Amino acid sequence: MKGSSVDRRTILTSMLVSAATLTVFGRSARAQSDPLPSWNDGQPKKSILDFVSAVTKEGAPDFVPASERIATFDNDGTLWCEQPMYVQLAFVLDRVKTLSAKHPEWKQKQPFKAVLDKDIATLAKAGEKGLVELVMATHAGMTTSEFERIASDWIKTARHPKFNWPYTDLVYQPMLEVLVYLRANGFKTFIVSGGGIEFMRPWSERVYGIPPEQVVGSSIKTQFKIDKDGPVLVRLPTIDLVDDGPGKPVGINSHIGRRPIAAFGNSDGDFQMLQWTTAARDRRFGLIVHHTDAEREYAYDRKSPFGKLDKGLDAASANGWTVVSMKDDWKRIFAFQ
Amino acid sequence: MKGSSVDRRTILTSMLVSAATLTVFGRSARAQSDPLPSWNDGQPKKSILDFVSAVTKEGAPDFVPASERIATFDNDGTLWCEQPMYVQLAFVLDRVKTLSAKHPEWKQKQPFKAVLDKDIATLAKAGEKGLVELVMATHAGMTTSEFERIASDWIKTARHPKFNWPYTDLVYQPMLEVLVYLRANGFKTFIVSGGGIEFMRPWSERVYGIPPEQVVGSSIKTQFKIDKDGPVLVRLPTIDLVDDGPGKPVGINSHIGRRPIAAFGNSDGDFQMLQWTTAARDRRFGLIVHHTDAEREYAYDRKSPFGKLDKGLDAASANGWTVVSMKDDWKRIFAFQ
Repeated sequence: MKGSSVDRRTILTSMLVSAATLTVFGRSARAQSDPLPSWNDGQPKKSILDFVSAVTKEGAPDFVPASERIATFDNDGTLWCEQPMYVQLAFVLDRVKTLSAKHPEWKQKQPFKAVLDKDIATLAKAGEKGLVELVMATHAGMTTSEFERIASDWIKTARHPKFNWPYTDLVYQPMLEVLVYLRANGFKTFIVSGGGIEFMRPWSERVYGIPPEQVVGSSIKTQFKIDKDGPVLVRLPTIDLVDDGPGKPVGINSHIGRRPIAAFGNSDGDFQMLQWTTAARDRRFGLIVHHTDAEREYAYDRKSPFGKLDKGLDAASANGWTVVSMKDDWKRIFAFQ
Repeated sequence: MKGSSVDRRTILTSMLVSAATLTVFGRSARAQSDPLPSWNDGQPKKSILDFVSAVTKEGAPDFVPASERIATFDNDGTLWCEQPMYVQLAFVLDRVKTLSAKHPEWKQKQPFKAVLDKDIATLAKAGEKGLVELVMATHAGMTTSEFERIASDWIKTARHPKFNWPYTDLVYQPMLEVLVYLRANGFKTFIVSGGGIEFMRPWSERVYGIPPEQVVGSSIKTQFKIDKDGPVLVRLPTIDLVDDGPGKPVGINSHIGRRPIAAFGNSDGDFQMLQWTTAARDRRFGLIVHHTDAEREYAYDRKSPFGKLDKGLDAASANGWTVVSMKDDWKRIFAFQ
């Protein structure tokens, strides 16, 4: 079971225990340990350590009280792998296949036919409108509890086509270390993702240590009803929030109600979250994960259909955002490597 | 300065410290202290203590892990006074008066004219449509930061017409004790209110110890923009969520992402939140604050325009919800009494 979720949890737990122990034994012991062991020494690692040190030192000019230490993380491409397609899109395609038994009409109806025929060209032509149709057919029309079970069951068994690991094992070890490090320093860590909020919540606590109430994502509307089993929330085929691009500050404001002091992203979908977080006179931190490692993961940026990073790459330097090269800055990418 | 926020904070802090100390000195010391000193002995107090004991005792049949100990509290009439009108309505009326200098046309235009003329009959006739118009004129059209400043400034200076105390001092001391007691027992406490989310957030942490990210409320839409000062969120005159009645489970699901195990309300606007929370085979807790004390606060229920409690009163017993009589069950209502 090397690299499994259980192993990772054990690693996280022991890191947390070490952090606590070190705090008891004081500064000299802490200085000797490395909170980010999967990061190579270099500017990105230094920028994270310097920022955390600056905002947590009581009495220092950049000190921020613990209650205001909010850090937001994009999910796809920032915390876990988003290639060769968003994990949630793989879920949608699998669900269409599963549900097609009950929908014989899909054999003749686009964009469902294209999914069943693995006809990627036609699927691509269906565009965003087609995608929304597929999402609604697979994400709406059931209760929130039913959807939670469907998403949980799928994520337990589905495997990544290239690495042949469960998707929840394809999370970036260096970023898990950042999450643990920030929390050990009094930060509250949030996910702010373009992905579906109820697709992530069933496993975010187990995988990232981020509880459901600290997950912000795209959502569809729900409606309260009393059915034969009692009160339920029915998922409606109506978009509530698209938590991407300019929707991220909107989602942050709605769910968190204050401005983060640190934001981590990887694509132009995170551009406005980075702007919203770092446009302040006080000390702030913005970071972009740049996918530069074709060997250990994938290399892509300006032209990728998933996780396109173009504007952000150009604007990073002027905005003081740290750009991480996965190839150069990370000792390993996944826990199993 | 008796009864001021500062005093209350001191009381809260010393209660928290006591709770921590008692934990160190073990069970016998804890048993001797009373975590709910403003509650008279009786069924309501006993039901709270019994519930918390049942869900926090490791290995016991009703044990709930700390991460799932979610408790939700209505605000108006449950945590603070909602008579003779909702505090936020007093804010709206004050804002219309203040803004009328810039809106000479309001002198001739309903429902604004009615507010300026103190013509309650006409105002009542304007109904919900009129109210929405007043809310939008006073709550939209500025940035989120501007609104936060306006709401904060108002709440610091406005005073309750009967008690002549700042509204944030008209919070119920027995409920503050419940909040502290639950948190000391590993609960995460949330506000789930029909009131505006951004009206409550500026002071919820100071007054209740509930941080902005744990406040759920009604909301209007916002839009991300870059203006001359950088990125802002502009408040739009469009309703996003009405977090009342059947909207409360919707808001809970959206913001918290799991079902509370305890819910506290006082009106029929909390009915569905209580249903959603308590309809489970596992141990759950629902409580209704019944306003029965005309002398120390107000007495009202089935016919009140604010905080109407009718259906909830009838359904409480069958659902196992605890009903608190403020007159009989609370030693004092406000900290200054």
